Amino acid sequence: KVIWTVLVTILGYASSLPVGDESICTAEELAKYRIIFIGKWSQTAFPKQYPLYRPPAQWSSLLGVTHSSDYSMWKKNEYASNGVRDFAEKGEAWVLMKEIEEAGEKIQSVHGIFSAPAITSGTGQTSTELEVHPRHPLVSFVVRIVPSPDWFVGIDSLNLCEGDRWMDEVSVDLYPYDAGTDSGFTFSSPNFATIPQETVQEITCSSPSHPANSFYYPKLKILPPIAQVTMVKLKKSQLGLSAPFINLPAKSNEIIDSVS
Amino acid sequence: KVIWTVLVTILGYASSLPVGDESICTAEELAKYRIIFIGKWSQTAFPKQYPLYRPPAQWSSLLGVTHSSDYSMWKKNEYASNGVRDFAEKGEAWVLMKEIEEAGEKIQSVHGIFSAPAITSGTGQTSTELEVHPRHPLVSFVVRIVPSPDWFVGIDSLNLCEGDRWMDEVSVDLYPYDAGTDSGFTFSSPNFATIPQETVQEITCSSPSHPANSFYYPKLKILPPIAQVTMVKLKKSQLGLSAPFINLPAKSNEIIDSVS
Repeated sequence: KVIWTVLVTILGYASSLPVGDESICTAEELAKYRIIFIGKWSQTAFPKQYPLYRPPAQWSSLLGVTHSSDYSMWKKNEYASNGVRDFAEKGEAWVLMKEIEEAGEKIQSVHGIFSAPAITSGTGQTSTELEVHPRHPLVSFVVRIVPSPDWFVGIDSLNLCEGDRWMDEVSVDLYPYDAGTDSGFTFSSPNFATIPQETVQEITCSSPSHPANSFYYPKLKILPPIAQVTMVKLKKSQLGLSAPFINLPAKSNEIIDSVS
Repeated sequence: KVIWTVLVTILGYASSLPVGDESICTAEELAKYRIIFIGKWSQTAFPKQYPLYRPPAQWSSLLGVTHSSDYSMWKKNEYASNGVRDFAEKGEAWVLMKEIEEAGEKIQSVHGIFSAPAITSGTGQTSTELEVHPRHPLVSFVVRIVPSPDWFVGIDSLNLCEGDRWMDEVSVDLYPYDAGTDSGFTFSSPNFATIPQETVQEITCSSPSHPANSFYYPKLKILPPIAQVTMVKLKKSQLGLSAPFINLPAKSNEIIDSVS
């Protein structure tokens, strides 16, 4: 389990892996997973302009969906939907929930929606369960970086099915993305719409290449991961509330050292 | 359906209805509900000290649980748990989730946990699904009022089972509660712990009886409801994502006039 986790982490799952015909899932039945999102946005790791007040660094609610390759919640180098824009800019989930609903109704490309509570500091964690289906084996989610112009972390179409079986555990490091809808350069920039809208782009330590950018660290090669997500398959005997929590620490930020 | 909804609303479900032996549920099987939380915290309805900036009026994530009468998430006139205190003061869900987990492990008093995304304005709505079980037919949840010292709205142990059947629809008006852990009097009061801790109390237009209180409206008999929650039983054919959303409006605040 640990090896597989490390492997996936090392391989550095790219959030925009192509999802094509090779991803046909022949697993039988549904599978349930516990998803654990861990914020690693500390002042130590990200000292530049770290938000301390009104609001201090924190994470929005997590909003996610399990779906087929006919649906996409968000994708690097593509334009964010109105729902993703509202969520990335304001943490407002409703329009995105409606978009997901419509994809579910019109083209049956969605299996379910899930959410987890917000985290009120930069480090800490939150958790919920999700269900995947052989015809809907992909997981996508977004969590807004608060405060920020339109920055978020997330996963785009991670396939939990591996041929005829479901993966046992997957862990992915997360890096910040810019939704391309607000031109602010720093965490606390005032609202300033990007017209015309730009595509979703990863924010790195050198891009946008401007010293004012909150993530611009010219001496680094890569940013440290700002968050991490782990999905653990639940055994049938574990279905229900209790089991998935077992071994999680009493305080939401205690796990950070043990996982990283 | 409408009559039942109106009836329940008129009867003014008290959040602390006694739950005793009379509540034995003989319904067969599980039931799923869509829960829709509607914020009605407008500047028109609540003009006094209405928070406009940093942060403006809004609602935290919704955190809820389905359970038996052996568990209580919160109760009027009783002391809030550490988890409810953290959630009511800061919107931090982790400790409360751990408390629920432990109740599920130790005394099997919990069926499941659910959450819905935050609402980033005083009016608007959010939604998710929940599942109840004949041995765990009660629903409780909390939503923090943001900003506030330790104020929240919620439901305590609402029984969705009526003898041998599940209710089709329940709608409840919600009023603010004080968790008894922070002595702030106004939405934006600085943090000021209440020592010794006090019990959970409803906040009314006359209590706390002090003109500085944000909800003190001496000319009113009762406050208008600051929020509303509706739970609608899903038919088996509706299970899955799409159906429960049907007929919800495109924007989260459009429903407010049509429901109230």
